[in-house]
Amino acid sequence: MTSTKPNLYTCLSPALLHLYDVSSSIVVIIDVLRATSTIATALHNGAKEVIPVDSVTDCIRIGEAMGAITAGERDGKVAEGLSYGNSPFEYPASFIAGKTLVLTTTNGTKLLHMALDKNAKGIITGSFPNLTAVCNYLVAQKQPVILGCAAWKDRVNIEDTLLAGAVISRIKNHFNINCDSSATASSLYEMAKNDLFDFMKTKQASHYLRLSNYGLEKDIQYCLTEDIANTLCIYEDGKLVKK
Amino acid sequence: MTSTKPNLYTCLSPALLHLYDVSSSIVVIIDVLRATSTIATALHNGAKEVIPVDSVTDCIRIGEAMGAITAGERDGKVAEGLSYGNSPFEYPASFIAGKTLVLTTTNGTKLLHMALDKNAKGIITGSFPNLTAVCNYLVAQKQPVILGCAAWKDRVNIEDTLLAGAVISRIKNHFNINCDSSATASSLYEMAKNDLFDFMKTKQASHYLRLSNYGLEKDIQYCLTEDIANTLCIYEDGKLVKK
Repeated sequence: MTSTKPNLYTCLSPALLHLYDVSSSIVVIIDVLRATSTIATALHNGAKEVIPVDSVTDCIRIGEAMGAITAGERDGKVAEGLSYGNSPFEYPASFIAGKTLVLTTTNGTKLLHMALDKNAKGIITGSFPNLTAVCNYLVAQKQPVILGCAAWKDRVNIEDTLLAGAVISRIKNHFNINCDSSATASSLYEMAKNDLFDFMKTKQASHYLRLSNYGLEKDIQYCLTEDIANTLCIYEDGKLVKK
Repeated sequence: MTSTKPNLYTCLSPALLHLYDVSSSIVVIIDVLRATSTIATALHNGAKEVIPVDSVTDCIRIGEAMGAITAGERDGKVAEGLSYGNSPFEYPASFIAGKTLVLTTTNGTKLLHMALDKNAKGIITGSFPNLTAVCNYLVAQKQPVILGCAAWKDRVNIEDTLLAGAVISRIKNHFNINCDSSATASSLYEMAKNDLFDFMKTKQASHYLRLSNYGLEKDIQYCLTEDIANTLCIYEDGKLVKK
């Protein structure tokens, strides 16, 4: 019966995380545009590890200490003092294989550190590029799950909600889901799934507008493509690694 | 051009209200099941005023001081010390006309007081029973709007999100809407609008389950019926009154 299945909840914004039982759950950090998509891509292409950090200062400091690649953007440009940006296209195997990437992002890293502070049972990152890896992992673990949307400065966003919906549509039979945010996310995904890019464009999603203003439609398209970098990214000892 | 239109935002939970500019906005308090539906019904049926209060204690105290009707539920039953419940069916004109109703609710009242503390430019309550009155008022005011979902103990719920979507679908051309929560709400409403009750049931909305467990499907059905008590409910000097 359903009572023996673990619970699954969707948390639509970091500002709502306190409502959920983080310490008994695996938390999936979702930052579709573009942090968790780029993390999946870098690890899929052979990066040794990705270290997510809050600030440009930390990124430079840790990057220098480790001899690692530093990356991050502010306002759509590579942040001053860093070498690379947030685009998944910057991390082909020919460049990233075997290397350590120190990546500074705002929304995704903040949520990850919140989940860590609340003693999450496990933390992975989720994106369309590694959707199947995420789903397979969650089903296999048989643990409670929180799909954590990184959102945009705590405001709910469409793309992270869609990813939550995509996960739910695939694994719902393995979980007990009594959660209106999950029902909302899966409804939105069912509406959008035939053409996620067109849905984002038609609905004038805030981050679609922001990135397309920078000419980054190609990035959006990539970040909405399922299983194009289908690698499980798990957080262990301060680093995201491939499993 | 769109820049001359006022902004409209949807706030999906009281825990997100701090993200929005409340003091320059008219805030619509949305608590579909059942507070704002019952408020619309009582005022539509001739109640002199509705005084929303947080606690049963306040409800009794104010009710006695004013010689008013006291109402409110906890866990689906009339709260101890109060005379009536939260059902709109308890407030026909034959009973409520000319009277003052002191109503204690949890989610809706909390959000209303938050909006008050943040100096909202105006506060009205919104529900399906008074949908057109709400829309007409917002269009006429030409002010920024926040559609404030009362949610359930800060968790996003389907029914309040649907009401926000219903409002947006009717008035979107009069506002500048760059808000993913609004896009999500209106998408959900477009999906659900042909049969809101069936949508709530099919999606196993948390509050649908809660109320139907108490045998209150009739209340849910009523609270999802558009314009059945089409009266504007505006908050002035501590009271909700008919305009």
